[in-house]
Amino acid sequence: MILFRCDYAEGAHPEILRRLTETNFEQLDGYGCDPYCESAKRKILAACACPEGEVHFLVGGTQTNATVIAALLRDYEGAVAVETGHIGVHEAGAVEYTGHKVLTLPQHLGKMNAGELEAYLAAMDADVNKDHMVWPGLVYISLSTEYGTIYSRAELAEIQATAHKYGIPLFIDGARLGYALASPACDYTLADLKDLCDVFYIGGTKVGALCGEAVVFPHGAPKHFFTTIKQHGALLAKGRLLGIQFDTLFTDNLYGRIAANAIERAQEMIAVLKSKGIPFFLESPTNQQFVILENGYMDRLAQEVGFDIWQPYDATHTVVRFATSWATTPEMIEQLRELL
Amino acid sequence: MILFRCDYAEGAHPEILRRLTETNFEQLDGYGCDPYCESAKRKILAACACPEGEVHFLVGGTQTNATVIAALLRDYEGAVAVETGHIGVHEAGAVEYTGHKVLTLPQHLGKMNAGELEAYLAAMDADVNKDHMVWPGLVYISLSTEYGTIYSRAELAEIQATAHKYGIPLFIDGARLGYALASPACDYTLADLKDLCDVFYIGGTKVGALCGEAVVFPHGAPKHFFTTIKQHGALLAKGRLLGIQFDTLFTDNLYGRIAANAIERAQEMIAVLKSKGIPFFLESPTNQQFVILENGYMDRLAQEVGFDIWQPYDATHTVVRFATSWATTPEMIEQLRELL
Amino acid sequence: MILFRCDYAEGAHPEILRRLTETNFEQLDGYGCDPYCESAKRKILAACACPEGEVHFLVGGTQTNATVIAALLRDYEGAVAVETGHIGVHEAGAVEYTGHKVLTLPQHLGKMNAGELEAYLAAMDADVNKDHMVWPGLVYISLSTEYGTIYSRAELAEIQATAHKYGIPLFIDGARLGYALASPACDYTLADLKDLCDVFYIGGTKVGALCGEAVVFPHGAPKHFFTTIKQHGALLAKGRLLGIQFDTLFTDNLYGRIAANAIERAQEMIAVLKSKGIPFFLESPTNQQFVILENGYMDRLAQEVGFDIWQPYDATHTVVRFATSWATTPEMIEQLRELL
Amino acid sequence: MILFRCDYAEGAHPEILRRLTETNFEQLDGYGCDPYCESAKRKILAACACPEGEVHFLVGGTQTNATVIAALLRDYEGAVAVETGHIGVHEAGAVEYTGHKVLTLPQHLGKMNAGELEAYLAAMDADVNKDHMVWPGLVYISLSTEYGTIYSRAELAEIQATAHKYGIPLFIDGARLGYALASPACDYTLADLKDLCDVFYIGGTKVGALCGEAVVFPHGAPKHFFTTIKQHGALLAKGRLLGIQFDTLFTDNLYGRIAANAIERAQEMIAVLKSKGIPFFLESPTNQQFVILENGYMDRLAQEVGFDIWQPYDATHTVVRFATSWATTPEMIEQLRELL
Repeated sequence: MILFRCDYAEGAHPEILRRLTETNFEQLDGYGCDPYCESAKRKILAACACPEGEVHFLVGGTQTNATVIAALLRDYEGAVAVETGHIGVHEAGAVEYTGHKVLTLPQHLGKMNAGELEAYLAAMDADVNKDHMVWPGLVYISLSTEYGTIYSRAELAEIQATAHKYGIPLFIDGARLGYALASPACDYTLADLKDLCDVFYIGGTKVGALCGEAVVFPHGAPKHFFTTIKQHGALLAKGRLLGIQFDTLFTDNLYGRIAANAIERAQEMIAVLKSKGIPFFLESPTNQQFVILENGYMDRLAQEVGFDIWQPYDATHTVVRFATSWATTPEMIEQLRELL
Repeated sequence: MILFRCDYAEGAHPEILRRLTETNFEQLDGYGCDPYCESAKRKILAACACPEGEVHFLVGGTQTNATVIAALLRDYEGAVAVETGHIGVHEAGAVEYTGHKVLTLPQHLGKMNAGELEAYLAAMDADVNKDHMVWPGLVYISLSTEYGTIYSRAELAEIQATAHKYGIPLFIDGARLGYALASPACDYTLADLKDLCDVFYIGGTKVGALCGEAVVFPHGAPKHFFTTIKQHGALLAKGRLLGIQFDTLFTDNLYGRIAANAIERAQEMIAVLKSKGIPFFLESPTNQQFVILENGYMDRLAQEVGFDIWQPYDATHTVVRFATSWATTPEMIEQLRELL
Repeated sequence: MILFRCDYAEGAHPEILRRLTETNFEQLDGYGCDPYCESAKRKILAACACPEGEVHFLVGGTQTNATVIAALLRDYEGAVAVETGHIGVHEAGAVEYTGHKVLTLPQHLGKMNAGELEAYLAAMDADVNKDHMVWPGLVYISLSTEYGTIYSRAELAEIQATAHKYGIPLFIDGARLGYALASPACDYTLADLKDLCDVFYIGGTKVGALCGEAVVFPHGAPKHFFTTIKQHGALLAKGRLLGIQFDTLFTDNLYGRIAANAIERAQEMIAVLKSKGIPFFLESPTNQQFVILENGYMDRLAQEVGFDIWQPYDATHTVVRFATSWATTPEMIEQLRELL
Repeated sequence: MILFRCDYAEGAHPEILRRLTETNFEQLDGYGCDPYCESAKRKILAACACPEGEVHFLVGGTQTNATVIAALLRDYEGAVAVETGHIGVHEAGAVEYTGHKVLTLPQHLGKMNAGELEAYLAAMDADVNKDHMVWPGLVYISLSTEYGTIYSRAELAEIQATAHKYGIPLFIDGARLGYALASPACDYTLADLKDLCDVFYIGGTKVGALCGEAVVFPHGAPKHFFTTIKQHGALLAKGRLLGIQFDTLFTDNLYGRIAANAIERAQEMIAVLKSKGIPFFLESPTNQQFVILENGYMDRLAQEVGFDIWQPYDATHTVVRFATSWATTPEMIEQLRELL
């Protein structure tokens, strides 16, 4: 059995385990106040080209989304997202649990359209009943998206400009940011993001860490964000677990290098799938690939290959996801070729 | 510099790191649906002598408290705790953030008194205005407490009987449960807890794990508790991180053995402190020791020894905490003797 | 200037004011524990043919929706509503503010389709990721709807049967219930509702009261619902204000009689509008009528007649709402004819 | 049976009912956008000597407290109140329900002591763990207090100065503000409050209105406070109900005059109670009087006179509350004399 179900099927990059082991008996202060967290933050801010910014480490993606969104919004505000946005679908209502509505726009291959955002914000602004409605308080997008697609620099800039026109910030869910940036289709770098959005996070869980997401506020975090993290149950006593992992990931660009592996394997996987005549549901330039399988074939294949069932396609076919990751090897792709 | 500041200054027990490394490239399902989580749950239920029970893994203590309490309470209910209870003081209002009041009783060396609980619940029951008040919906105690003290079996039984008399469950915050059970002063075992409370958790973060708390519901969890965990941002994608750690801790009673180390070191530390004539603020039979230091002496000592400042004692003295842990060695105690 | 903007432009039915004045100096217990509240509840339960049920009075519609929904749902559940449902649009996120997501289905002239509800609930039930999603915990519909339309008995029965098939209750927002029941198109009565849904409310604010909504639980209210009302800030100290109003409305079927007036006037208004060749946006059998006005004409008309701007129709036309109410007189309709 | 149980046993001042009746068929815009609300706001701001301020009308006290507090606080902040403060005791956890902790200080005859507030805020400021704690975000006091006592001008000024020193506002719950201001013991006026606190409300429910509280922000309300009111379910569709009532209460100082009646009757009642040798629990200069009754006597008296049972005094005595109001007549006091 070989799994292409997701990008979190293995543990961590070995270098992370090595450094956790190496530093294990150093006595360190808790709650992120240790030198590894400090070092990791400096390295991340350097990589993001915003040394004046602020970095906070949280444990997982849903938690990070809920915490950042709650910190940015006032009670009467909601988060604008596309209908496939992770916060509105597969986070068990974590955002609503903190009191905020997710305001949805249509999705286009998982992406938000700046024109539709503008139309929504303009209509809200003009609505005579707007005082009876949830105010849009931030724009949320994921990069790469839930369909593996990415925004171009121009698209990000247009979305941000639209949001700013209405006085609201743009927040990027970067659970899979590494895979977006490593894609040859991506026309910007990590260092560009400080100008293309107002806050984003660098996902560790899906890009080689055991857990951990690094939130980057290029212009400083909301007041008392540390307390907000604690209030959300997102503060690790052993903050070193996050600090050491991110310090490792941002040493010698390990983060970028292992993300690139996933993209190379994905390109190989695309070739394999195409060579077998398997139709694609959409074109994704990152590590998630969505193909259409006939249901009987799908059931047989599932006995030897792990993939994720995404959505029904028609009465006899299903859309499934194959994902590569930092840990996928050329041998695994070869194995897949044989099993298909 | 040597730290006795807390019981989470080091990383994890080396056996945990060894097994994380050993299993690192096994491809596993996410979200706790892997064989290590299953195995860990079986071992924990066996150790707790409640094979019919249910175990869930969460990441940290504040998170676990807020999640379990919210799952057990209805909106109109609050959690009864003593005034020093962790949920009411150092969790940044995480319980209130989910909508529930912490209803406080006096503390006695950090403990709740069953008679005072009975008096409170009886008064509430008799109050003509009770429909305008928050209903007590569960009783929360910590074991060991924030002052390192523990409840006797009789005390637990009496508190639980009182809670049950009024139809509400008893929840034990076991962030430091290992150290309580390992104390020679403790007259019950892990296997007894299923009868002495309604839900409890076995703290990993402070007893040898990198992170992780194992919630034990001896009689089954609240409906959809998995979704509740997700909604609280407490579900790890790489659930293996928790499964492997707890599987290790509950193999050959590693959890009990390393907790016992902390207690042995604490006994040695008590002897050292007493030999230096340092007065104790209270007597604790576990790994946290509270002593009274003259402020000038305290400041000098702080340059070589890490301890936690707890509370002012009088104008010229301060109560400080020294903690041992699974990682404390006899050499560290010896060093402390020299530095005092 | 004559207003057809809404059904709450006037104060209260004069009989209500008369009885408030008549009883004004009677000394009564507060918080709904007075004989007028008791009497009103008995009369309502008699009119609803469920003498074993329970009635609670709240002040306004948004408040009632948020309070009832929060009382019926567990934290991990959301309310299923159509996309035009009042709770999801014009209640400022009051439901999300209590932690619950509004799960939306398409609307058809403001109504939910039982087949679409079934499809959604079945898909959720079959979804492999359902534990990561908000669970549907109740179905919310409004009667009459935000477009003035009503459900047939068969439609209600089918929606309820679908909800029950999945173990969830049906809640009817009856802010305009009187106008639905008074419509000649309605094939059921107030006494039938106990069998067609699980909880509903009888709107007073829009049907002749100064304020007030009477929630009817045909089979008993959730535990401690009084405290829930208080917690939502929805409990009036002078509960008499609601008791006397509903006691008056349910004496000699005043509620039904004044609702019938609105429907008769609406029928006359339809005739007037049609006679002027004004196109209807949709056909409504109740007191709200939606027509399409050319924008220039609309602006001129707005100087003499009050109506509600609903939504843009096309570049040069707008959908507007004209509403009648318990207070609308034949003379007002005549005046409208002259002004159109 | 004659009731002195509370100050909301009767309906409304007859002038209010007269004006509600007189204006009943005027067609008015909803949601507080009518000329009566506008007029009432102007009159209130004039009476408060802060024409640049902002007034909002809400329906009841618990609702107003929860709404204002939530609007003023950020998620990580709580409200500081004395342990008898209404928000912490008899509001069913409405403040916690919105996510905020009530941080309690000791009470002294129902009042907060500025020195104790200073000590608490200073200790918080100096606490090394403060980032793990709920931040004090506002100070809440009630005027008159739950024990009928009032603050002197100097006391208010000192509390406000202390709060401001730590950058937080002072909020006065004025559910019984009228009775405080009408007391001969009060050394300030309504016009002084703008300088003595940052936001307060003028209670209508307990001072002659059917319902309604007028929140006064001397320096402007929080952004989108209208939406916040709606989100809390506190916005009346028929805003006229509040506008007309407050317009009446602030015409020719009706509010002050009827509050004064309560105080005069209270002084007479004190004389009657003293003449009967009934001991007072404490001295209150307003409309609530707390006396100690022997339990047997209390039970007999309760058959003819309504009073509120407050708290046990000792094994054989109970503290009870007698309240006068705008509606209490000299004849009622005379009757009480005969029944005692």
